[in-house]
Amino acid sequence: MEKIFIIKIGGNIVDDRASLDAFLRDFSSIREPRILIHGGGKIATSIGDKLGIQSQYVNGRRITDEQTRDLVTMVYGGLVNRQIVSALQHLGCNAVGLTGADGNVIKAVKRPVKEIDYGFVGDIGVDSVNTGWLRDLLKAGMVPVFAPLTHAAGSMLNTNADTIASVLAIALSNHYYARLIYCFEKKGVLRDLNDMDSVIRHLPKRLYDELLMKKNLADGILPKLENAYAAIQGGVKEVLIGEARDLIKNIGKETAGTLITA
Amino acid sequence: MEKIFIIKIGGNIVDDRASLDAFLRDFSSIREPRILIHGGGKIATSIGDKLGIQSQYVNGRRITDEQTRDLVTMVYGGLVNRQIVSALQHLGCNAVGLTGADGNVIKAVKRPVKEIDYGFVGDIGVDSVNTGWLRDLLKAGMVPVFAPLTHAAGSMLNTNADTIASVLAIALSNHYYARLIYCFEKKGVLRDLNDMDSVIRHLPKRLYDELLMKKNLADGILPKLENAYAAIQGGVKEVLIGEARDLIKNIGKETAGTLITA
Repeated sequence: MEKIFIIKIGGNIVDDRASLDAFLRDFSSIREPRILIHGGGKIATSIGDKLGIQSQYVNGRRITDEQTRDLVTMVYGGLVNRQIVSALQHLGCNAVGLTGADGNVIKAVKRPVKEIDYGFVGDIGVDSVNTGWLRDLLKAGMVPVFAPLTHAAGSMLNTNADTIASVLAIALSNHYYARLIYCFEKKGVLRDLNDMDSVIRHLPKRLYDELLMKKNLADGILPKLENAYAAIQGGVKEVLIGEARDLIKNIGKETAGTLITA
Repeated sequence: MEKIFIIKIGGNIVDDRASLDAFLRDFSSIREPRILIHGGGKIATSIGDKLGIQSQYVNGRRITDEQTRDLVTMVYGGLVNRQIVSALQHLGCNAVGLTGADGNVIKAVKRPVKEIDYGFVGDIGVDSVNTGWLRDLLKAGMVPVFAPLTHAAGSMLNTNADTIASVLAIALSNHYYARLIYCFEKKGVLRDLNDMDSVIRHLPKRLYDELLMKKNLADGILPKLENAYAAIQGGVKEVLIGEARDLIKNIGKETAGTLITA
């Protein structure tokens, strides 16, 4: 099976033009089929502030009202996504900027209202992905670049970028040897939160269960790791977690970050 | 040769949600291969005002500085384009939202600085279009929806929507029987500007030259007609000018608007 990299970057890279440019240079030199998913970043909040759009919270959870939906559609789906695509094209990488609506590539469901109405938020699953068109793009040597947006019933929907990355990786794992790469601000999963160099290089499920039982993992990393093992269970061969530049420069060499396997 | 419709809509439709929805309903029921190009509309100006971005003019010509470039990238390439695509998907029309940067589908040149520096404005020609990928999308039954944006040297560029429509129509006329449709606020080219029903139904080049010599055409329509005859000269079979709903409801019937031919 051919290898594919599904790479997610977050606000720490998207918000900083120098980091983003450096990342995109490394990313454009990868030869394998690959997909980029970008998060939003603080720029949406700062533009929202200027437009008088306040983030609303209910019980500490962020709500996507109509104004916020239009804000993230503009900023994530317009400014950030189009900037990344034009930068990649200039680097010789044949990028295509997508939301889930384009070619209906990711179908979503507007999150059902239970205790909280999250507003225009999209829930997605493995069967949400139209892999046919995605594979056509990849076969043509193109590089899909996803904004964290999906759609349903004629509306764009705010959708978690980690989830989009994981769902895409699982859906493609029937056709590719898929590696899901979560870039974040740390070098990997740490044995000791106070020691940035205490990266656990390889974290198979057994070791994870052991560390979890001993309460040797920081709370902050747990949701990411749960996402990671869910992807592995869904058929993704490997998940790599670490710092973007570290991971992408050494892609395929296994010398950076934490490698998560079954 | 198979027929294709290349349809351009402007601000009068983009800015008014009810008109836009009505237009998209008609558009989604067309069966032939088709491409939609949308202009910007006043919404960019109103969002720009709130963000403190003022349109700059030199000698009466609008300048796209860096802030304005980012504004139009957000609004045209994000808000407007993504909204149209999600609405079309909901109508069962398999739309794909594009700027010239996606798949490098339209290569541009940043307008050279002569007397005026227009800033981040893209100039394009017939050989700017990557027809290969565009035809792949059309063959797959997809409907490309273009924002008025192209790219060069890693930057998005503001580009006239009429020009994009005309360049796409000419480039595709080698492969399709191409009809370029310019939607605007009038019912067509008028014999008498004070009589909205005095539409000239058929305007072959000979009649145009005659009316031009007699100064029987209003100044406002001349740039559109020049564009239209340039498209005809480039291989486009027909150009239709008129009101969006009129034209799209009666598409293929020749009962509305002004039909321009060689």
